[in-house]
Amino acid sequence: MVSRDIMRSTTRSFKKYYSPSIKNELRLDTNTNVLGSNPAAMRYLKEQRIDLNDYPITYSDNLRCALASLHGLETENFVVGSGSDEVLDISFKTFTEWGDDCLVPYPSYTLYDYFAQMNGGSVVYSDLTDDFQLDADDIASSKAKIAIIASPNNPTGNCFRQADIEDVLARFKGIVIIDEAYGEYADDSMIPKVNEFDNMIVVRTFSKAYAMAALRVGYAVANKDVADMMNSVKIPYSLNSLSEGAAIAAVKDQDFIKKSKTMVLAERPKLASGLERLGFEPFPSDSNFILARSPIDHASLTAALKEKGILIRDFGSKRRMENCVRFTVGTDEMNNELLNKIKDILEELR
Amino acid sequence: MVSRDIMRSTTRSFKKYYSPSIKNELRLDTNTNVLGSNPAAMRYLKEQRIDLNDYPITYSDNLRCALASLHGLETENFVVGSGSDEVLDISFKTFTEWGDDCLVPYPSYTLYDYFAQMNGGSVVYSDLTDDFQLDADDIASSKAKIAIIASPNNPTGNCFRQADIEDVLARFKGIVIIDEAYGEYADDSMIPKVNEFDNMIVVRTFSKAYAMAALRVGYAVANKDVADMMNSVKIPYSLNSLSEGAAIAAVKDQDFIKKSKTMVLAERPKLASGLERLGFEPFPSDSNFILARSPIDHASLTAALKEKGILIRDFGSKRRMENCVRFTVGTDEMNNELLNKIKDILEELR
Repeated sequence: MVSRDIMRSTTRSFKKYYSPSIKNELRLDTNTNVLGSNPAAMRYLKEQRIDLNDYPITYSDNLRCALASLHGLETENFVVGSGSDEVLDISFKTFTEWGDDCLVPYPSYTLYDYFAQMNGGSVVYSDLTDDFQLDADDIASSKAKIAIIASPNNPTGNCFRQADIEDVLARFKGIVIIDEAYGEYADDSMIPKVNEFDNMIVVRTFSKAYAMAALRVGYAVANKDVADMMNSVKIPYSLNSLSEGAAIAAVKDQDFIKKSKTMVLAERPKLASGLERLGFEPFPSDSNFILARSPIDHASLTAALKEKGILIRDFGSKRRMENCVRFTVGTDEMNNELLNKIKDILEELR
Repeated sequence: MVSRDIMRSTTRSFKKYYSPSIKNELRLDTNTNVLGSNPAAMRYLKEQRIDLNDYPITYSDNLRCALASLHGLETENFVVGSGSDEVLDISFKTFTEWGDDCLVPYPSYTLYDYFAQMNGGSVVYSDLTDDFQLDADDIASSKAKIAIIASPNNPTGNCFRQADIEDVLARFKGIVIIDEAYGEYADDSMIPKVNEFDNMIVVRTFSKAYAMAALRVGYAVANKDVADMMNSVKIPYSLNSLSEGAAIAAVKDQDFIKKSKTMVLAERPKLASGLERLGFEPFPSDSNFILARSPIDHASLTAALKEKGILIRDFGSKRRMENCVRFTVGTDEMNNELLNKIKDILEELR
């Protein structure tokens, strides 16, 4: 057996990622779009006739151009990758040296630790305040080289206050990544301010509201100098041609995104009230999911729901999220099914 | 303007990658499969009906399983990525520390330097012998942490002797990557020996003989311990579902690969003789391309051929390859067109 001592020292403890065995369960655990596959992307894929022998355009210029139109910016403000995961990896590779600290708020997305360590860095945490907002003073005074802030935050669901984010950007000495993976559901975005803060990288994905997780597309928006540095470090043509074409089609069909947001805005308060009536304590959300403290044991609830055909995500063993679980906001029908099954579980336990 | 001083120190000098402006030229510069798009992959893509909302299987288990069948190994021997470029990146991230040396033979594929430096390493070179073979003693005595050897080598075209490769594997202290990007065209492969050498990673791509460059698929084969380490470091589900499905279909259709190899074996000697008759000195090739010393100035030849609608790759300004250019082996018709146009260029210069 080959020892893991041959590995990069910061990666030796890595485990493989969350990978539940799935049957036909309703998936309210991944926060993808419950309205189903992106229709414009599906149409593109059905009609495409690309030559598989042609390498993609080196820096995905056509998608970068479509994104520039969408956001009222320029092609040179964009970096495209195979999922926002690649874009996060590029950010760390471009802007951190070995051993640099990466600041991550807590609680937040668990994979951030992994991107920092994979690239030779280590992680320092800044606890969110009691209402899950940024502790701007704590972050601004950190000596970390890079900070990564998800807004809306995952798994708490809320956006951070714009004023706090801008305060951090103005005072933090290094690069600040704003991960807007769920940005399409929120009212605020930092994308319009990329030319105002030269240490900011905003990251977005096509895996959530855009309903294209299968195709792995993500992007970063930054001022042109920073974007150019990232493009020079990224692996050339890392995004395959079909995913690029599908993403361009999806960007041009904003009706689907609007419809998805409207659905979430309508259903989220109903789901939150339903959970409250059952004894849960839901936290405020600006996204397509709700974190809630469970009235019964988190692990039992998650297991019982899986037994009844619904997957949710369990965070109940983690500090600050004791006994909490996370629900993707479904359609009216899905949410009713969820609430009814939770009700059944609570009654069975009585 | 933001200064590049904020970049990782080893990446500050990076430039963007070779990206020629293409019209309708015949591309004999990229060594892709001149028989056109992979037919099994095309059929799969036409018929696929995937749900775009579903994340891919985390470690591309279905493709790894198909590759295991193809090579008579096990699923756990494989690591799959978005192009062999991602697999190379994973190799460096998993097995090098900051500042580690990476040994690269010279001449070889230029992007290896970039993978080493991107991941905080530096490059040391080992010159190939006069006949472009490995200097096994030189490599084995190196203190580098990782070595990367392409066989068939690019741009020289030849395979290294198996005995030399095995000698290096037995004596070199670190990880040895054998890049078999053009392995489908060669008679020898190190894949059958992955369980014999526990410091070996063999890398292959679907961009060349498989004729699927647009889809970005590559893989590594190694002993199970090494493959597991790499999978734990790689970004989860980095390969999109469509490319995975198309690659599985392509793996199961080996007739296309055989036909492609047969074509190259038949046309390569004819192209080499044709070039010799025109005054070129072609080097021996085990691949689908030929490096040759030009009888006229390399840059003038490349420019004149572009003018006449054929792209080739110019290496003529590089040490050891003075005045050399590289030709992809085309079909009989393509090669005749190439030779005729070179003949015209030579006559025009007279």
